[in-house]
Amino acid sequence: MKLYTYFRSSAAFRVRIGLSLKHVAYDAVPLHLTRDGGEHLREPYRRANPQGLVPALEDDGTVIGQSLAILEYLDERYPQPPFLPRTPLERARVRSMALSIACDIHPLNNLRVLNYLKSRVGCDEEAVKQWYRHWIAEGFRGLEMLVRDSSADGKHCLGNSITLADICLVPQMYNARRFNCDLSAFPTLVKVDEHLAGLPAFAGAKPEAQPDAQ
Amino acid sequence: MKLYTYFRSSAAFRVRIGLSLKHVAYDAVPLHLTRDGGEHLREPYRRANPQGLVPALEDDGTVIGQSLAILEYLDERYPQPPFLPRTPLERARVRSMALSIACDIHPLNNLRVLNYLKSRVGCDEEAVKQWYRHWIAEGFRGLEMLVRDSSADGKHCLGNSITLADICLVPQMYNARRFNCDLSAFPTLVKVDEHLAGLPAFAGAKPEAQPDAQ
Repeated sequence: MKLYTYFRSSAAFRVRIGLSLKHVAYDAVPLHLTRDGGEHLREPYRRANPQGLVPALEDDGTVIGQSLAILEYLDERYPQPPFLPRTPLERARVRSMALSIACDIHPLNNLRVLNYLKSRVGCDEEAVKQWYRHWIAEGFRGLEMLVRDSSADGKHCLGNSITLADICLVPQMYNARRFNCDLSAFPTLVKVDEHLAGLPAFAGAKPEAQPDAQ
Repeated sequence: MKLYTYFRSSAAFRVRIGLSLKHVAYDAVPLHLTRDGGEHLREPYRRANPQGLVPALEDDGTVIGQSLAILEYLDERYPQPPFLPRTPLERARVRSMALSIACDIHPLNNLRVLNYLKSRVGCDEEAVKQWYRHWIAEGFRGLEMLVRDSSADGKHCLGNSITLADICLVPQMYNARRFNCDLSAFPTLVKVDEHLAGLPAFAGAKPEAQPDAQ
């Protein structure tokens, strides 16, 4: 397997956690998202992954884009340890938490969106930071309540084992801290993250632990 | 089952298609997203769905937010007709296409984001329309190539049957037309949509076919 990655991409961060939890060996192919206008937007990557976003996983000659599609794929191919609980309702709760990050926080704060705000809308640095923090706070507000209801041990988003929701939470908390977001309203998320971020699969997937880190 | 819905929400549109394809009966509970500052942001809905977004599905007393989590839930509870192909790689391709819409197009063009651009960034109507069309064009560019590669009959995103990707495509095409996006660069998507949009499950889920339509 080949993982197209960028150290700072939090969607790639998710997949690195997933690969590590499943003990799957892979070759990392770093793409630099800002150098020369972005290596992810040029050939040959653009041909392999027409979505032109990072990460993508190549397996058996097929390239899969979208971090959650990759994580579900890994979970189907390597069932242990599972990323989802057993009952359909609990699986839905986990996916709902994961998607609340992957759809309603992260894409709004993606590099390309921040660039658009700066270059085409004319936002200054402060307005961009406000935007960034706003969508994190909006998303975390609901997530805090969901996790409070569904965590069994205060160390995981649901029950007492690692799921897709945890894999999405840790990179998002990392970003929140990078942008100095006020996390005081989200004590449950802070506590879950505190536990998870120190585990080897999560710590080893952090941006600064990557070979392409700057 | 109870579906919290809003006629114009394209995420709710997806779930209405899914429920119809699975022949699942449900009670629609319409929430008005703009009246009185948004019924979805107030009690009692906000307590039931802390994410405060539409749609949500209530089943067995549990409320599930996030349209893709709901669709996967429906697919697990009611396996026929399946929303995903059988092999992990094909499932991943379908999820990747669905997520390219659900993560990388739709959330950027959500009502709350357009409102933020207007009220807090100070964008005028024309700048908001440009923003809207930009993210659709960006997302459709990659999706057009993916569907061209994976559709077997030019009537479906992958193979020759309806999947999650189709369920996401049709509402997004609907939105694109509503905002007068130029679709000439996406002939494959136009053709697939043309076929699907006329099918009863899709046509019956359209905004203007809903009881709460205005």
